[in-house]
Amino acid sequence: MIKHFIAGGLSLLSLAVQAQQTDKQVFEKIFDETMLHGEAYDNLHDLCKNIGHRLAGSPQADMAVRWSYELMQSYDLDSVWLQEVMVPHWVRGAKEYGEVINFGQVNMLALGGSIATPKEGITEQVIEVKDFDELKALGAEKIKGKIVFYNHIFPQNVVNSFDGYGEAGPYRWRGASEASKLGAKAVIIRSVGSAHDDFAHTGSTGFADGVKKVPCAALSAVDADFLHDALIKEPALKFKMVMNCEMLDSVKSYNVIAQITGTQFPNEIIVVGGHLDSWDVGEGAHDDGSGCTQSLEVLRTLKAINVQPKRTIRCIFYMNEENGNMGGKTYGAYAKGTNKEKHIAALESDAGGFSPRGFNVDTTFLSHPKFDELVELMSFYGAYKFEVGHGGTDIGPLEGAGTKLFGLSPDSQRYMDLHHTENDTFDKVNKRELHMGASVMGMLCWWLSEYGVK
Amino acid sequence: MIKHFIAGGLSLLSLAVQAQQTDKQVFEKIFDETMLHGEAYDNLHDLCKNIGHRLAGSPQADMAVRWSYELMQSYDLDSVWLQEVMVPHWVRGAKEYGEVINFGQVNMLALGGSIATPKEGITEQVIEVKDFDELKALGAEKIKGKIVFYNHIFPQNVVNSFDGYGEAGPYRWRGASEASKLGAKAVIIRSVGSAHDDFAHTGSTGFADGVKKVPCAALSAVDADFLHDALIKEPALKFKMVMNCEMLDSVKSYNVIAQITGTQFPNEIIVVGGHLDSWDVGEGAHDDGSGCTQSLEVLRTLKAINVQPKRTIRCIFYMNEENGNMGGKTYGAYAKGTNKEKHIAALESDAGGFSPRGFNVDTTFLSHPKFDELVELMSFYGAYKFEVGHGGTDIGPLEGAGTKLFGLSPDSQRYMDLHHTENDTFDKVNKRELHMGASVMGMLCWWLSEYGVK
Repeated sequence: MIKHFIAGGLSLLSLAVQAQQTDKQVFEKIFDETMLHGEAYDNLHDLCKNIGHRLAGSPQADMAVRWSYELMQSYDLDSVWLQEVMVPHWVRGAKEYGEVINFGQVNMLALGGSIATPKEGITEQVIEVKDFDELKALGAEKIKGKIVFYNHIFPQNVVNSFDGYGEAGPYRWRGASEASKLGAKAVIIRSVGSAHDDFAHTGSTGFADGVKKVPCAALSAVDADFLHDALIKEPALKFKMVMNCEMLDSVKSYNVIAQITGTQFPNEIIVVGGHLDSWDVGEGAHDDGSGCTQSLEVLRTLKAINVQPKRTIRCIFYMNEENGNMGGKTYGAYAKGTNKEKHIAALESDAGGFSPRGFNVDTTFLSHPKFDELVELMSFYGAYKFEVGHGGTDIGPLEGAGTKLFGLSPDSQRYMDLHHTENDTFDKVNKRELHMGASVMGMLCWWLSEYGVK
Repeated sequence: MIKHFIAGGLSLLSLAVQAQQTDKQVFEKIFDETMLHGEAYDNLHDLCKNIGHRLAGSPQADMAVRWSYELMQSYDLDSVWLQEVMVPHWVRGAKEYGEVINFGQVNMLALGGSIATPKEGITEQVIEVKDFDELKALGAEKIKGKIVFYNHIFPQNVVNSFDGYGEAGPYRWRGASEASKLGAKAVIIRSVGSAHDDFAHTGSTGFADGVKKVPCAALSAVDADFLHDALIKEPALKFKMVMNCEMLDSVKSYNVIAQITGTQFPNEIIVVGGHLDSWDVGEGAHDDGSGCTQSLEVLRTLKAINVQPKRTIRCIFYMNEENGNMGGKTYGAYAKGTNKEKHIAALESDAGGFSPRGFNVDTTFLSHPKFDELVELMSFYGAYKFEVGHGGTDIGPLEGAGTKLFGLSPDSQRYMDLHHTENDTFDKVNKRELHMGASVMGMLCWWLSEYGVK
């Protein structure tokens, strides 16, 4: 009997080894196909150069939807469709104007969602603070009627530049709201970005309920220093800002969706996606044309190597991540409302098309019985870091539907240099890096389709 | 007694934990200093923009030596000196000219060390081969008097692009020699590079003893395709190449060296370096201005945070890695000849100033008693990959002196796009990535100075 058990043990072991070799072989096929024949890079070139930036509600966003739909149809997938989404429609209007009076003009971008200044602009004294503590210490008396300038420097001593975003980001997200509570007339911030250059970074800002909205904009890091230095020379200087932005009526747009239907469990869905919209500057190359074209590449590659996933892999180009997440919310509501489909997993790529280093995962995924095997297989491709963390904004609303969320985690060093700037252009994307990312996304999606999430 | 042993065990454990925390703290200090106040990026800007490319023997290489010496002196280190090195002096002469007759001009660069064509050039029929097997199958009869065109495509389905270099590189390294053995009049190769663009990649070529030297040059990937397509249309077409390169007499140059002297074991030396010379195109930014400025940053950082290494850390800017390695050989001969100093370890950065992913190490280092601790500490900074592999060409000659060799292993995806091209310029280097690399180099050097190599 003992012998029998040992023999049984060995044969199970040998089956396990065989299974793992098969996974390894599929991973190799995915890698070779994506690296040798991948089309994500050329598709991204098309999107960036023929359409360009594409804020939700803009004519370019509409073009991008049509382009995506046609592209997906060209790949002979099992189905391609559009999901209607109502999106906010914010417009920048004529280019903003910022000037440090007596010193010179600066490079400034309105933050997304900001209101306009009066037509003649706002010309007012500047109160510089480096953080919320300084703002509070000054209090309403010193702030009222002034322009608050948050000069919070992006921390460079972070290993992952998203940690820097976590620290400096709040000055963009709620700096205007906090200053408005103390009576500020307008707000300017040092751009939330890791490069010391002359590109201003836009991005959403928000106001707490009941707080009066005020115009808010970002200066480039170089011009934040310029203003800081000018304030040392002339503490009572005035800053002039003219902004023409406006929130128009919401408009109809779409999530663009395609899938390969699972052979065994067609109603178990694995979502892979990015967001099609971008800010209204640059080309939305890393943020997030990369994630969309990588996600579609996952389907193209599986099709090309003739791998039939057991579960359905559904690619979604989400609309309106940047200023409302209406695409994510709309799809999330659909997923929660359907009883035909179970969304077991969702993977987002929205951290740039850089060299993959791993995935952010759901805590519960760490106990997947085949987790260690997966990590070992993926490590070969440089995707070794499986850490509990953020999946992605678009897929966030799936959380309540019991879906395990995954986020591609690329090398983060360059992302916050370009994020939401005129500089997020196609030439900053490297073909090998983009396709490496797409290949490990393909591996994860296929693996999930094979083994489920347990 | 049992209790006593347990207590002893615990106290040893607690000491070990304390020691490791100290290492962790030093690593943090190194990281913070390099990331917040690092000067490698600004130094690299100086080198690239004020001097530019600097092939050994050129006036620019001479300027770079002076610049390096002055820079090192400005850092108040324990000593700074020059080591004389005789270097070959190859010159490209007037820009080359390449033309597919009846089709058009191409982007071509002579390979380093090539001889010139006759003044009027060589205009001859082209025999395209994709590899050495095809060359041999054709044999002397088909090759004699012709221009051999190696059209070997860089393999993209490699995780580490240096593996692609390993596969495609031989066509540059010895393609001309192999073709000359069969009587070829000249050789052109598809550039050894990972990008599909219009930059030709130069780099050394060599001839086996007794083989007649013939002119050899590289076409950009785009122009290799252009020639390939032209050959399909007109198989008997001729290619014209005019090259003006020349090997002049060797000249005197220098390795530039600085150190922080060890407090406890001043004669145990840890070398950290890169090579100061570059090819004669572009700015030698990633190859290898990055490695030099990172190496000096290691010393600057340790000085700035007031860490006194127990063993000597010696920074070397080597001369002539690209076409002779005379700097490496000269220093290696010194190290082997001295009985005052023992070179226990050497670390080179010559794989680009990209995000660090780990280190190539010597096999014997894997059994260092504190190896696992080091890997864990370094992994936090993204430098998780400690693999047996190549240290670096410059430090190679130290091998016989019993020195453990280490090579910084950065993310490799972009390096072979730029390698030895006009495109290896400062703007391709990212400050955070460069400084991340310098910081982990600093950690390794300090750690080796603390614990030795056992």
